Amino acid sequence: MRKVYVVGVGLTKIGRHFDKGLRELFAEAALKAIDDTKGVNVEALVVGNMSSSSLCEQDNLGALLADYAGLTGKPAFKVEAACGSGGTAVFTGYSLVASGLFNVVMVGGVEKLTEYPTRTVTSALAQASDAEYELYFGASFTGLNALIMRYYMEKYGVTRSEISEWPVLMHENASRNPYAQLPFKITKERVDKSQIIADPIRLYDASPIGDGAAAIILASEEVARKITDTPVEIAGLGMATDKLYLASRDKLDTFKATVEAAKVAYNMANISPKDVDVAEVHDAFSILGLINLEDLGFVEEKGKTAKLLCEGRFRPGDKPAVNPSGGLKARGHPVGATGVYQVAEVAMQLRGDFPGTKVPEAKVGLAQSIGGVGSTIVVTILKR
Amino acid sequence: MRKVYVVGVGLTKIGRHFDKGLRELFAEAALKAIDDTKGVNVEALVVGNMSSSSLCEQDNLGALLADYAGLTGKPAFKVEAACGSGGTAVFTGYSLVASGLFNVVMVGGVEKLTEYPTRTVTSALAQASDAEYELYFGASFTGLNALIMRYYMEKYGVTRSEISEWPVLMHENASRNPYAQLPFKITKERVDKSQIIADPIRLYDASPIGDGAAAIILASEEVARKITDTPVEIAGLGMATDKLYLASRDKLDTFKATVEAAKVAYNMANISPKDVDVAEVHDAFSILGLINLEDLGFVEEKGKTAKLLCEGRFRPGDKPAVNPSGGLKARGHPVGATGVYQVAEVAMQLRGDFPGTKVPEAKVGLAQSIGGVGSTIVVTILKR
Repeated sequence: MRKVYVVGVGLTKIGRHFDKGLRELFAEAALKAIDDTKGVNVEALVVGNMSSSSLCEQDNLGALLADYAGLTGKPAFKVEAACGSGGTAVFTGYSLVASGLFNVVMVGGVEKLTEYPTRTVTSALAQASDAEYELYFGASFTGLNALIMRYYMEKYGVTRSEISEWPVLMHENASRNPYAQLPFKITKERVDKSQIIADPIRLYDASPIGDGAAAIILASEEVARKITDTPVEIAGLGMATDKLYLASRDKLDTFKATVEAAKVAYNMANISPKDVDVAEVHDAFSILGLINLEDLGFVEEKGKTAKLLCEGRFRPGDKPAVNPSGGLKARGHPVGATGVYQVAEVAMQLRGDFPGTKVPEAKVGLAQSIGGVGSTIVVTILKR
Repeated sequence: MRKVYVVGVGLTKIGRHFDKGLRELFAEAALKAIDDTKGVNVEALVVGNMSSSSLCEQDNLGALLADYAGLTGKPAFKVEAACGSGGTAVFTGYSLVASGLFNVVMVGGVEKLTEYPTRTVTSALAQASDAEYELYFGASFTGLNALIMRYYMEKYGVTRSEISEWPVLMHENASRNPYAQLPFKITKERVDKSQIIADPIRLYDASPIGDGAAAIILASEEVARKITDTPVEIAGLGMATDKLYLASRDKLDTFKATVEAAKVAYNMANISPKDVDVAEVHDAFSILGLINLEDLGFVEEKGKTAKLLCEGRFRPGDKPAVNPSGGLKARGHPVGATGVYQVAEVAMQLRGDFPGTKVPEAKVGLAQSIGGVGSTIVVTILKR
């Protein structure tokens, strides 16, 4: 299999972009990524997006965005795996280069969520769950994650207040990220006393609703060596799925698909969790951050992540440093773009030019993208 | 690049399946495809679908369908390129095998359109056009195609009645296809006198609204040789896009993206249009059938397809035989599944076991999948 490298990245600030639609947002990220490569000839485009169809009445998104990104006519299409669409786009783009079909492929992600009534957006996001068994009965996406949080807290004796350490660290990290939607620090007390969304999930446990776009450019080894001195290799890549309907799962305190995808990715990259310097994990809600660190092998004893967090672990300097971007919680979560943000951020950490909280001397990074409540997972490992 | 083969196919009859949702429809096609390989171990799933998000409130479709197809846990995701989602899924699945990431990949397509009010479905399908420049102003998808038909008729002096030969041939072919939605013959008079949908497009020019699912199984050469005596090679594959917004196109009587995608596919397969024995082209409306045969190089003089049709060309025995399935017009057009039906049908023609109108001794076949009004095109060439 041909080796594949990240050779360019472009991000927009995440937020309420009332002046920009899908096409303008995406073009901004895409042109930045092309600039980052000093103008490499992009041969094809894969876009991760969840809700353009249900919210923006726009399908055929690949061709539309290719046109606005200056790639008119090139092969282009959208991939969808709910909130994991971004990671899935990276997976797909990787295969387009690894196969030899193309030498240079742009992987993008874009989402436009802020121009709709909250009820409309909540319904659109709930489409990540099983429509016929969950959504039609009124289960919101936050509600399903709240079930998991309650179960985890009860099973492992973890308190509300311990879990609040997660958003505190995420906001601390995001406070230095120029692309973050919520770049400010918060206290544990503020989390503990924030509004209940779906008990026990509180406002500050939940990632915000935001618009954003991200793009990375993948290239074959030959092209990568020519155009950059700091190519970052995609050294491992794993994808796995699980049943959508939570009631049909064996376990609720672990995502089998993460464990499986990570196993494949670690094997392919020939590393173990101990080798990872920096990780961007999918913390759409605080509880997911905890579960993910366990499933990815960064915490050996199940149920212990909150304790380690309280002891000061997972900060820059620790191995791994977790979500120096601020994570979904505070960098933001423009759904289909998030997985592309993560890979771009990890690549910048390895190149040494991430413009926020830095992880010095990072050589190996990992990004984890989740669709649904742990039902579609992509784990990507990057190496310098 | 590794060679990729079609080793199994499975189709559902297209129609109004009020008793089946997306998951049941897809499972039927998927299990038939697995049976067709006598139970090969499928490693991953790519699904083409356009409207699950806007009509069925279901995203995260890959994981859901993997579960119901007996592939729980395997890598799975959806690709979307409007009405070209099926061809795009084939393209993506090809790259997953060609890259070496997987040896056996299922490519599926599914669409569920018949349980919604006509206005709702018409709006959903119009999402294939440019929402902000076309859909929001009330342009229906049929309306946009009607503009093209009128332009073509005026420019080349082609009459309404000549174009009616297209649906007559399609229904003739479909009358022998057990999977077709409209398996009955019609007369030219019936087309000429049918209801106007968007002048000059009449009822019998338009593909019907239907539910359906298709699945094919792609495998590496090593696996293909082991499990079947009749592997069909995907010998060429091309994809191209164009601006969505019709008013920004250079020409309306040709789809530049077809010409480009076909050029790539012919080169890759090392053949010319003259070598093609059987073709399944994307005739969502009669006029598209005519334009496609010209863009694909089967008709050398622009504007002459209707005349050749009237002379009896493109029937089984001619080279190429066109749409022996009945085409979108009469086999049906379950949008995101259609491109997968086409590749399955061509593969069966080359294997010699298509259960409808047969093309004897076919060695080379072509399938063309279109998203939007010629804005995303995939051309796939198959060889025995």
